[in-house]
Parts: sequence; structure tokens; C-alpha cells
Amino acid sequence: MKFFINEPDQIVNEAINGLLTNPKLAKLDSFPEVRVVIRADWDKSKVAVISGGGSGHEPAHAGFVGKGMLTAAVCGDIFASPTVDAVLSAILAATGPKGCLLIIKNYTGDRLNFGLAAEQARALGYDVQTVTVDDDIALGKDVKKRGIAGTLFVHKIAGRLAEEGRSLSEIAAIAQKVIDSTASIGLSLTECRHLGQELTSRLNDQQAELGLGIHGEPGIEVITYDKADKLMNLAIEKLEANLPDANGRYAMIFNNMGSVSPIEMSLLVNSFHKTKLADKIDYMIGPAALMSSINMSGFSVSILLLTNEFEKALLATVEPSAWHIQPFKKPASISSPKLPETIPYEPSANSAVQKLIETAAQLLVAIEKEINGLDAKVGDGDAGSTFALTGKRLLSVIDKLPLNDTGKMLLTIGRILAREAGGSSGVLLSILFTAAGNTYSKQPDLGKALLDGLQKVKDYGGAQQGDRTMIDALQPAFEALASKESLALVAQQARKGADNTKNIINTKFGRSSYLSEAVLRDVPDPGAEVIARVFEKIATM
Amino acid sequence: MKFFINEPDQIVNEAINGLLTNPKLAKLDSFPEVRVVIRADWDKSKVAVISGGGSGHEPAHAGFVGKGMLTAAVCGDIFASPTVDAVLSAILAATGPKGCLLIIKNYTGDRLNFGLAAEQARALGYDVQTVTVDDDIALGKDVKKRGIAGTLFVHKIAGRLAEEGRSLSEIAAIAQKVIDSTASIGLSLTECRHLGQELTSRLNDQQAELGLGIHGEPGIEVITYDKADKLMNLAIEKLEANLPDANGRYAMIFNNMGSVSPIEMSLLVNSFHKTKLADKIDYMIGPAALMSSINMSGFSVSILLLTNEFEKALLATVEPSAWHIQPFKKPASISSPKLPETIPYEPSANSAVQKLIETAAQLLVAIEKEINGLDAKVGDGDAGSTFALTGKRLLSVIDKLPLNDTGKMLLTIGRILAREAGGSSGVLLSILFTAAGNTYSKQPDLGKALLDGLQKVKDYGGAQQGDRTMIDALQPAFEALASKESLALVAQQARKGADNTKNIINTKFGRSSYLSEAVLRDVPDPGAEVIARVFEKIATM
Repeated sequence: MKFFINEPDQIVNEAINGLLTNPKLAKLDSFPEVRVVIRADWDKSKVAVISGGGSGHEPAHAGFVGKGMLTAAVCGDIFASPTVDAVLSAILAATGPKGCLLIIKNYTGDRLNFGLAAEQARALGYDVQTVTVDDDIALGKDVKKRGIAGTLFVHKIAGRLAEEGRSLSEIAAIAQKVIDSTASIGLSLTECRHLGQELTSRLNDQQAELGLGIHGEPGIEVITYDKADKLMNLAIEKLEANLPDANGRYAMIFNNMGSVSPIEMSLLVNSFHKTKLADKIDYMIGPAALMSSINMSGFSVSILLLTNEFEKALLATVEPSAWHIQPFKKPASISSPKLPETIPYEPSANSAVQKLIETAAQLLVAIEKEINGLDAKVGDGDAGSTFALTGKRLLSVIDKLPLNDTGKMLLTIGRILAREAGGSSGVLLSILFTAAGNTYSKQPDLGKALLDGLQKVKDYGGAQQGDRTMIDALQPAFEALASKESLALVAQQARKGADNTKNIINTKFGRSSYLSEAVLRDVPDPGAEVIARVFEKIATM
Repeated sequence: MKFFINEPDQIVNEAINGLLTNPKLAKLDSFPEVRVVIRADWDKSKVAVISGGGSGHEPAHAGFVGKGMLTAAVCGDIFASPTVDAVLSAILAATGPKGCLLIIKNYTGDRLNFGLAAEQARALGYDVQTVTVDDDIALGKDVKKRGIAGTLFVHKIAGRLAEEGRSLSEIAAIAQKVIDSTASIGLSLTECRHLGQELTSRLNDQQAELGLGIHGEPGIEVITYDKADKLMNLAIEKLEANLPDANGRYAMIFNNMGSVSPIEMSLLVNSFHKTKLADKIDYMIGPAALMSSINMSGFSVSILLLTNEFEKALLATVEPSAWHIQPFKKPASISSPKLPETIPYEPSANSAVQKLIETAAQLLVAIEKEINGLDAKVGDGDAGSTFALTGKRLLSVIDKLPLNDTGKMLLTIGRILAREAGGSSGVLLSILFTAAGNTYSKQPDLGKALLDGLQKVKDYGGAQQGDRTMIDALQPAFEALASKESLALVAQQARKGADNTKNIINTKFGRSSYLSEAVLRDVPDPGAEVIARVFEKIATM
């Protein structure tokens, strides 16, 4: 396995230093022996809210330090509780006369180290209260419950109340109420991989785990790997069986365990949205990595039974960018604009124009095989068929075309090419005719309009004259047209341009750039050849 | 490979539906044929800013739709440009009299489809301008540059200017200036894996790629996998060689390509922070997945040369939660609190207390091997050594102890245990003495104080009487003390409690819960046994 690390024993310290590029955060100068991240602007005028625990759960906990959430976070080694001294340092650094709330996740190591630090701080005269979060419902009701992502509800609400200036005892009581109203469940496809270690998976490709912890411990149940909707249902059934209140309204934390891709997380939200529980959800925090397990490919869903007070505290603005909440609703649609018809204009007659289009279109059909043969030497062999298809389509709608209005006629050809012609060449020719039609409608000069259109082809397509494309025939022909030359001379110019492409054997553009000189020499670009043929045919009409 | 998906051909649609649980967003009702995500509150009163492209880059592009950023996003299939009709639908749905800016990433498919849609919209009378982003500097200066994560600078600044009510031509001109001032480079350890497909890696465990694209195409250089700091240096050297202005100040996008774990991303920010370029950076967007490549294990760094106008627009508040910017600075320290000394109190003499402590401590040393032997049967065989260590430490500091002040004495023993004793039992005993000392200092009743301390042990440790721990000896002994019973009776109670643990063969708590009945029967809990021995010794002093 490859990871972005330097020395394995420096991972936590380096990650904390990366976080500390945010100037609103600071570390205690006893770092890295003591790893405490604290608000840089903290003045101890309000209740301090401190949490922490093992590392490997980023952005928890240090990523939630900031105004309106945590005052300080104490970081242990990967999945290991911080020491008593580290927790005590955080308490002493952060706690003023209004006291301090410690938010502990329910693991023996955290309970003991945070608990002892709280006792020691009390012995020094500090007013410290603790709450212990046990939101995981995977283990059922009889077994000690673990603290997982639902802890963030406690951070946010306690942090907000502290910011409002509430008293320690009030905040501790409400934090306990939050804990009693929270439930979480997780599901993963793979366990986490410790950075710098080889992967040995306990799960095969047909297995997943339901009821995961956040420290790489096995899930409560090994389940069969299945479609996202089915996996989500399994997890949510567990949660529904443990709802604090079947008729309540809820906020939800939708947590990425570390390395689920963003598109999968959005897809999982959609899976969740189809469950019955979705109807009870008013707000979503995430989807995002909030309480991760290094790089576990899994998710967890935490819910909090809402009260007016909880809702207000959850929605209050907050400094840590890792926290974001939004209302959760059924996807909404707005009415789609009606796309223009391919041929929106009234038909009009003009026998000369009709003859010109028919002649060109018939030629495109007639030379299909010949041009395909040419394209087979330097491309994928279908250029003739692409042009022939456009020719057939033009012939089939000839009596519906605005033949007597050149601007509208150019726009209509552009539209037919957009809907009917395949590949890049179809889109490029459509751009040419559409842009030419737009220009012509303002200033009726066909040569100039076509040159404008060709400029758009260069702009959007990226090729220039000399790059062995249609442009090599179109450019000189349109220039001649713009100079009011005869159709015979225009055709000569197109032919000269097309023939020139036989000698372009070194181009950085398009498919030809992959081909060798020996392959390209003496073969014209098929697109340019078609253009020359069309002008030659029209000139001799 | 396992992924969270249902049907491979529904991934994009389902992910968009997941995103649309945000009620500020809506889809056109021609979804999913046409995949357009648009602001639900959009009233066409300002310039519309539209972007999009292939999917697989989440949260880009639809995740950046919202007030102050994109008006609408057009989503293609994974890594495939949306159709002309889809782009045209977005333009028609979003564009009012002030017109529309299309922000295109520099790929042929996007240029052609967005370009043609722009031409068609113009033909329908809409005022449309386009800009094409080409921020990738991996390919050097002569080759066509791709549009990657730097595109988000354009989204943010154009979106802000539109929100301010600026004109289309102004916004397009400034957007082009942003493009000209942006450079990006990426590096990855593994390519992205298409969801639902097997992984076939072109890179082995000793390789990484520099100059990646966002569509799974090979990087420009295969480099040797190395430490994070070295890999970061390689990438940043490329960027420094292509800085828009060597003396400028920059904003930076620190982008996760999809599945780098949060702790690694923070570590990479620290690696970046050590490069010379870091001194030129004033702001960071991220670290976060912003323009991902499904689940690529890689990162990209994009920089924008700041002007006052750019800076103001980047910092302006914005609705999409995927965008967050913060100042970028050297990590700061604040001075650490001085931790209390282990023995902070003045020594005082009390020969009876001294005799009591010496007797107990000598006993702990004397029974080390015996207790280790007991622990070897039901634990890891070191309980005797742990207690002996505490005994030796107490003997060595006996003349520094506040022997004549029971409250301070209890607190001091708590501190010695916290610093010197190992394992959970050390922390638990420290909690007991510290909490008892706190209580005694307020109300000098030793038995009651010790019972208070024991309650904390239960609270933090989670074990109760009957769980085969020290508590089984401590509880009856402390209750007898609190009832002012004789020391002889206290010792009897402790002994009875310790002996009872021989019969506790079914406990959910601690290490004993893993052991069979046959192993546990007739062996007392080593901790409880030590407690009984200490009381028995003291009673017969």
C-alpha cells in the first residue's frame, strides 16, 4: 500500500501542523509531547468545551476547534487515548472562571484519562464537568455502547451554548440530553488500513460489515456485499429499531469513514433518501468525512431527536469549516425550457438555393465509400458515412427549409448538423453554420459570415490552418468568397487547400498527431477533401 | 473491488439526486435525459454563470451551484461531456436579459458541445459569452493545457461578480484574467478506479505519477514513490517554474482527488508548508475533495495570483458548502500551562500515618511475585509488579509527603499513581485517591471521601461491584470505614469481598470476560486480593 506519509511515528504531529496553518488555531508550546489544539483567540470568558481522543478520526476532533464549537481538542496517537497530562494541559490552558465541559467518547482509555484529568483539575480548583457519549446502537441495548460520530452533535450544541454565555451546569445538563437523544450506526465495505502498513483484509469481495466501530475493530455482523440501496436499508433498519422517538423530527450526520469517493457519498444519500427514515429528517450535516476511521471505505449515519433548542444550536453559524448543515428535502424539479425545434422557420422557396443544396447533398451521398476509404488510411474510416448521413437528412427535409432566407437557412443547417451528424466534425460544422447564420442575420455578407463561423470553429475546436483539418480547405475558399471572387476560383482555392494537406505530415492536432509521416504522406485530410469536392461540384453546376 | 453503487449506468443520476436533497437546488424536469442542476431560487435578474462537464469530479460541478457561485451546472456521464442539448437547456433555463457566462474546461468535447450550445443560444437571441480554463501546467508551455481544479477560482470569482450585479462583458473579461493568473499541478499514488469495474493498476507499489489529469489518463511522468515531503517538493517545483508572477501573493486550492484520507490531506498541507512556495500563499481553499477524479489517491495544488478584486471575490460568503477559504499561515503556539508538580505540598510529619504508609508500601513490594503468579492465571501476569512499583515510589518519597494533612495526602497519592503507576489500574486508583482528596478537603470524613472516590472509579471505569475487580474488596471496606467500624472489621470486609471474587465466573467486564469458568473458578481477582492484604496488614500493625 502507498500512503502520503513521511515517518510513521510523525503522522499525527505532521497532520496537526497541517491543520494549524489555519491562523484561528494554535497549539500549546509543549507540542508534540502534549498535543493540544486550541482557539488562538480564546480569552476564557465563557465555559470552555473540550473534547479529544485518539487520532485517525480527522477532522474530529481538532478540526472542530473554533468559535461556536470546541474550545480545545486533545489528540492522542492513532486510535489511542491522549495521556492524563495532555488532557490536564488542555483544561488548564482553556478553563477560566466559568469552568469547562469535557466531552468524552465512551472508551475505557478515554474515560480513564479524561476522568483523572478532570479530578486533578478539580483538585486544583477548576470547575470541570464531564459527559460521556455512547451513541452507537450496533451492539444492542444491553452492552456498553461506544461513542462515534453522534459525538459531533454534542460538540456543536454545547459549543453554541457556551458561546451564548450559558452556565457550565446548564450546558452539561443539555449535553447529556443530546447524548440521550442520539443514535448512530455504521456500515463498511473494507476496514481501515493503518498508514504505512500492509493491508490484510478480514473481508473478502463478497462481504461487508454492519455496526462498525471507528478503530478498525470488526463490525458486529459480517453481511453480504450488495447494492448500495440494500446495504443502506440494512443499516437504517437497525437505526429505526432504536429511534429515541418514533414520531420525532431528526437531524442527521452523514459521515464518510475516510475514503469513500464523493460521487459514492452522494449516491448513498440518495439511497438513504428512499428509506422510511428519510421522512423524519429535517437537516443533514454532510455528506463528508467528519468522524473518520483513517481511510475506511464505509459510512455512518447519526441522528438526533430535535427540540427547538437543539435545532437553534445546530443551525447557528460556526467557525470550523468542517461543520456544515443544510435542510434535507425531497429532490425538486423545475420545468425544463422547451428546446427549439430543429427546423423552426417557415419553409420558403428558392429554386437556385434548392438546386445548390440538392447537388451538394447528393454528392455527399455519392462519395461515401470513397471518403471512407480515404479515412481508413488516416482515421477510423467513417468520415464518408458521417457526411453522407447529413446529405441524406438534408434531402429528406428539403421542402421544409427556409430556402429563401440565407441567415435562417444557415442556422437551420447548423441545427440539422447538431442533431443528426455524429462526432466532432458534425459539432464543428454545426458551430460553423450556426455562427455564420448569427453573423449573417446582423450583416448579410455570406463570405464574411462564413469566415466568422470558421473563426468559432478554430476557437472551440482548437485547430488552426495548417493542422491538417477541414479548415485547410475552408479558410482559402471562404476568403475567396468574402473577396467576391467567382465560384470557380473559390473551388480552386478549396482544392489547393485540400491538396496541401497531403504535405502536412507533422501536426500536433487531433488524430493525425499520432500517425507517422509514412502513413500521412500523399493522403489528403478526408474532411478537407470533402469540402473541395463540394465546392468543385457547386462551381460546375 | 467493492463500491457503493446500484446499477453502473445509474451512478450519475443517483448521485445528482442525492445532492438534490439540498432544497436550494433543483433539477430540470427533463432529468435524467438532460442533467441540469440549477439554483431553486434563481430569478434571472443577474448574469447567469454556468459550468459543467463530465461527472466523476464531485463536488464539481453541481456541488458549486448556489448563490454567489454557479447558477447552474450541466452534468455529463462519467468523464464524458454533456450533450449540446443539455448545455442549451441549462442556458435557456438560467439566462435572463443580463446574459450568461459559460465556463468551459479545456477538453475538446466540452469546448465543442458548450461552444455549439452557446452559438445556438445566441441564434435564439440570448447574450452568451464563454471562457475556457486551461490551468494545468503539467504539459509545459507548448502543448494544449487542460482545465483542472483551478477552474473553481473562475467559478467563485465570476459567481461573486454576477451576484454583485456586474455586466456580462465585465465578468467575462475578469474571468479571462483569472484564467490567465492560475496554474495547477497534480500528483497521485494510484489512478482512479471506475465504479463497478475491476482495478487494473498501471502503477506498481514503487511508482507514483506527476502531472495527472482528472479523467484517469496517465500522468506526464512516472516518478518513484517516496515520502510525502519529497513528492510534494517535486510537484511544487513544477508549479514554481510556472508562476504567473514570482513576486506575487497567491490563493491556493488544495484538492483531494477523491480518496486520500483526511489525516493524509492534513499531513500533505504540512508538507506543502515546508516548500518555498508556502511563503507566497495568503489563503487556502481546502484541503478537501473539490475537483475529484472519482476515487484517485492523489492531490492537486492550484494557485491564483491575487489582485484586490480577486481577493475580495474569493473571500465573499457563498452558499455552496463545498467552498471554504481560510487564511494560510505558519502554525502558531501559545504558551503551555505549567502542570502541577507531583508533590506540590509542604511536607509534614505524622508518625502514625508514616508507619501506615510504610507498612502498606513494604507489603506491596513483598508480595510482588505472589500477586504476579495469581495474575498470570487470569491476566497478563504483571499486577504484582504494578503495585510494587507504586510501593517503592511511596517509600522513596516518604519524607516529602504532607503526612499530617489527610486531604493533601490523598491528593498526593493520587498524583504519584497518575505519574508512576501503569495501566488502567493505576489510573483508576489515581482517580480514587484524587476524588477522595477533593471530597475530604471539603468535608473531612475519610470513609465518605473514599466512597466518593470509589463512585468516580465506577463512573469512569464502568465496572460495578460484582464485576470481579478491585471494587469488590474496596466497596465493603470503605462502607465499613464510613460506618466508623474498627480497622479489624474493615479488613474482614475487604477479605470477604476479595474471596467472593473467586466465585464470580461470569462477568461482562474487562479481561475476565474473555476467560472460561474453569480458568476463573477459585482464583481471586488479583487487584481485590491486594486490597484485602493491605487492609489485613494495616489492621494488625
